[in-house]
Amino acid sequence: MIQRHIRIYILFAHVLGLNFFSYLLTTLQAQNSEQQAFFIKSIYDEALEKQQSYEWLYFLSEKIGGRIAGSPQSLAAVEFTHQVMDTLGMDTVWNQACEVNYWYRGARERVRIIGNPHIGDLELRALALGGSGGSGPGGVSGEVIEFKSLDEARANSSKIKDKIVYFSRPFDNKFLKTFHAYGSAVDQRVHGPSLASKLGAKACIVRSMTGRLDSFPHTGGTLWEDGVNPIPALGISTLDAEKLSALLKKSPVRLYVETHCENRGKKTSYSVIGEIRGSEKPDEIILVGGHLDSWDVGGGAHDDGSGCVQSMEVIKILKSLGYKPRRTLRCVMFQNEENGLAGGKTYAEESGKRGEFHFAAIESDAGGFTPQGFGYDGDTSRINQYTPYFREWDDLLSPYGLHITKGGGGADIGPLRSQKGILFGLSPDSQRYFDYHHTENDRIHAVHPRELALGSAAMASLVYLLDQIP
Amino acid sequence: MIQRHIRIYILFAHVLGLNFFSYLLTTLQAQNSEQQAFFIKSIYDEALEKQQSYEWLYFLSEKIGGRIAGSPQSLAAVEFTHQVMDTLGMDTVWNQACEVNYWYRGARERVRIIGNPHIGDLELRALALGGSGGSGPGGVSGEVIEFKSLDEARANSSKIKDKIVYFSRPFDNKFLKTFHAYGSAVDQRVHGPSLASKLGAKACIVRSMTGRLDSFPHTGGTLWEDGVNPIPALGISTLDAEKLSALLKKSPVRLYVETHCENRGKKTSYSVIGEIRGSEKPDEIILVGGHLDSWDVGGGAHDDGSGCVQSMEVIKILKSLGYKPRRTLRCVMFQNEENGLAGGKTYAEESGKRGEFHFAAIESDAGGFTPQGFGYDGDTSRINQYTPYFREWDDLLSPYGLHITKGGGGADIGPLRSQKGILFGLSPDSQRYFDYHHTENDRIHAVHPRELALGSAAMASLVYLLDQIP
Repeated sequence: MIQRHIRIYILFAHVLGLNFFSYLLTTLQAQNSEQQAFFIKSIYDEALEKQQSYEWLYFLSEKIGGRIAGSPQSLAAVEFTHQVMDTLGMDTVWNQACEVNYWYRGARERVRIIGNPHIGDLELRALALGGSGGSGPGGVSGEVIEFKSLDEARANSSKIKDKIVYFSRPFDNKFLKTFHAYGSAVDQRVHGPSLASKLGAKACIVRSMTGRLDSFPHTGGTLWEDGVNPIPALGISTLDAEKLSALLKKSPVRLYVETHCENRGKKTSYSVIGEIRGSEKPDEIILVGGHLDSWDVGGGAHDDGSGCVQSMEVIKILKSLGYKPRRTLRCVMFQNEENGLAGGKTYAEESGKRGEFHFAAIESDAGGFTPQGFGYDGDTSRINQYTPYFREWDDLLSPYGLHITKGGGGADIGPLRSQKGILFGLSPDSQRYFDYHHTENDRIHAVHPRELALGSAAMASLVYLLDQIP
Repeated sequence: MIQRHIRIYILFAHVLGLNFFSYLLTTLQAQNSEQQAFFIKSIYDEALEKQQSYEWLYFLSEKIGGRIAGSPQSLAAVEFTHQVMDTLGMDTVWNQACEVNYWYRGARERVRIIGNPHIGDLELRALALGGSGGSGPGGVSGEVIEFKSLDEARANSSKIKDKIVYFSRPFDNKFLKTFHAYGSAVDQRVHGPSLASKLGAKACIVRSMTGRLDSFPHTGGTLWEDGVNPIPALGISTLDAEKLSALLKKSPVRLYVETHCENRGKKTSYSVIGEIRGSEKPDEIILVGGHLDSWDVGGGAHDDGSGCVQSMEVIKILKSLGYKPRRTLRCVMFQNEENGLAGGKTYAEESGKRGEFHFAAIESDAGGFTPQGFGYDGDTSRINQYTPYFREWDDLLSPYGLHITKGGGGADIGPLRSQKGILFGLSPDSQRYFDYHHTENDRIHAVHPRELALGSAAMASLVYLLDQIP
């Protein structure tokens, strides 16, 4: 049948002056693309019918729970994912040590409006920010001074001494992707407390990083400039933030703040790594990963239990389908993304020392929601070399709602940039992410099993296509 | 500036032998497309910042609740949406009467495994299906006979007399879109009970129409062939269905079934219609709508409170932006989609009598989730005429994750097909829809305000683009 095809083609080709080899190439590409479409369908069938990741996520977020780097739970998570990887039939599984700073929340924080002429005393729902200092058991009290931005605080630096600084700029909800709204507000949480401390504030509170009006306070990392004293710093719920801002319009507000946070110093922790050695190009590595640590509250189900279990599911899917990778596949559970990135940095350092080359790295750290594609970043010349493939893959991936677009990657794989491969970030639907991000509420119920599975399938498909590049 | 542009172009055009008018057209199109992009951005800003639909949905699903056609709640919903539309500054708002059959669930249904050698008695979580008959207060008991399909039941017709027929085929979860999985299983619910009754069964139970394993039973419509006695028919939760199927593998199972459903006969109900008269082509109508009725359990938040409030929000957005439609805009809350389609049929009949032409109709009835685009259907020649526009709009809509694809529409607008316009259905992400569909759980908490708002913005953008067609 194919031979007859070819003979007829040669006839026409002679008439039309076409090149036989270009025909052969096109035919082979078409066959190739048909095979690829078929394999991607198998990946999705496997993911949707035989998903294991939801069970794994249940264990990680509900049986282990919040697992900030250095905590006992973080080591339980290392052990758990190592044990899971041991069942996946990989060639090697190992723990890679890294040094982390263990920040400990201690007894529950309090933020209370005190002696207010309008409402008397009122407890606000708050979470201390990661890295912030403790107030001591007696707490601190002071008058609140509200700013909408770091610049506004700088412009009023003389008024800040002994006050409690309150950063209140909300998300700009006009952004279509909530990560952009986050990006437009998070400087207040990351740099606000350090600035407040430098200018003599007793404490700093920040409106929680979410576009939703609700009663869940959000924690998250805050950075201290060298030599700056880490004062108590907390996120308050958006509903409480609205209330506080309204009260401040009427008259001065005094707050009582009590936190018991402490920096417990260096601990040894681990990233967990599994590897399937490539059959043809073992020296070119394709990595899938997420970060194993989470904040200490909630269960870190979306952030980033999802990325971890999806990465392991990628291996399970490809193994179940009998796929023998041509390049080396690595599955990495990075340690300490939330407050230090020790895992990602150590991984890249060790990899550099061994002279490894990561051909591509894919991180899932934007929640276990319906995937919409991948963003890419990395070395320009390599990207130019491979974007024609991305365009070719559009026919294969768009039926699954996936599009490959410029701009992406992830914090943990960022340090691999120097190896000049391509860095991908999974892009899920972002609308619900900041309902849960860094809260008590980031639990298994917030993750939908099918949406999670579709993310695994998307990642497995991309791994497969990358591995097929000649 | 533009003039200088044109002069330079004419110079080049002479050199290159181009046509000045084609340039002008291209330039005007580009300007046009830029204006359109700008207006669509305004629509999204308005929807994301000043959404009202979530408040409306709260009232509809939580203050009014389940509102099956003919029920007191269904008339409360008519009054509520009429009052809302009265505030939107439309030219006319009216109720359109239609005759509906009022099916009444009555006292709570029971399905109980009785005297089982393995587990004794066990209550199953069940909901009577819409249109099904009552058992009488004494209930009915019988031995269960399980089938995976209507065909299997037909092939075993001699074994069915006096039994309780159980249709147990699950969703095929390999389908990417859950509506396809629904389509592959729902014949059991729609036609199973009638078939069972015809073959002498005492009652019929059906595995609930969801791909998820949980304890929520799903109701939904069932159809009776002419002259067939409506026996008790119920959906049981998927977890209970799994349990029942497992028990049936061991030994015969007897069930007790009790339902108190009754057909309360014809009632007059209403669809609610609002209109803004077109400034240039008033005789060409663009319709947006959803269905106002829901099942009697839960709050009908996704099905289809969402479609109703999104359609009203479309009007609110366009009004807020000062948009004067060239064609007539209609916003329609259809009555009785769930069990009779009286609203949709009556609307099309009345419209036909008045010789109206619906240039386009857009229905939202697939849940208030993140929109992924629109499916279209309708008259072939008109579609051929307008698909070039759809392709042109891709640049405008794809930044919002929207794609216009073949195949769509909706039940309520289906009867308008004879007017030979184009029928569109909003296509949201479908992964979570059948967690809630037709259950007690279809309540406001299941709808995300931003996802809902994005659907309104998508619909308003399509209305705008359709209205801009010369």
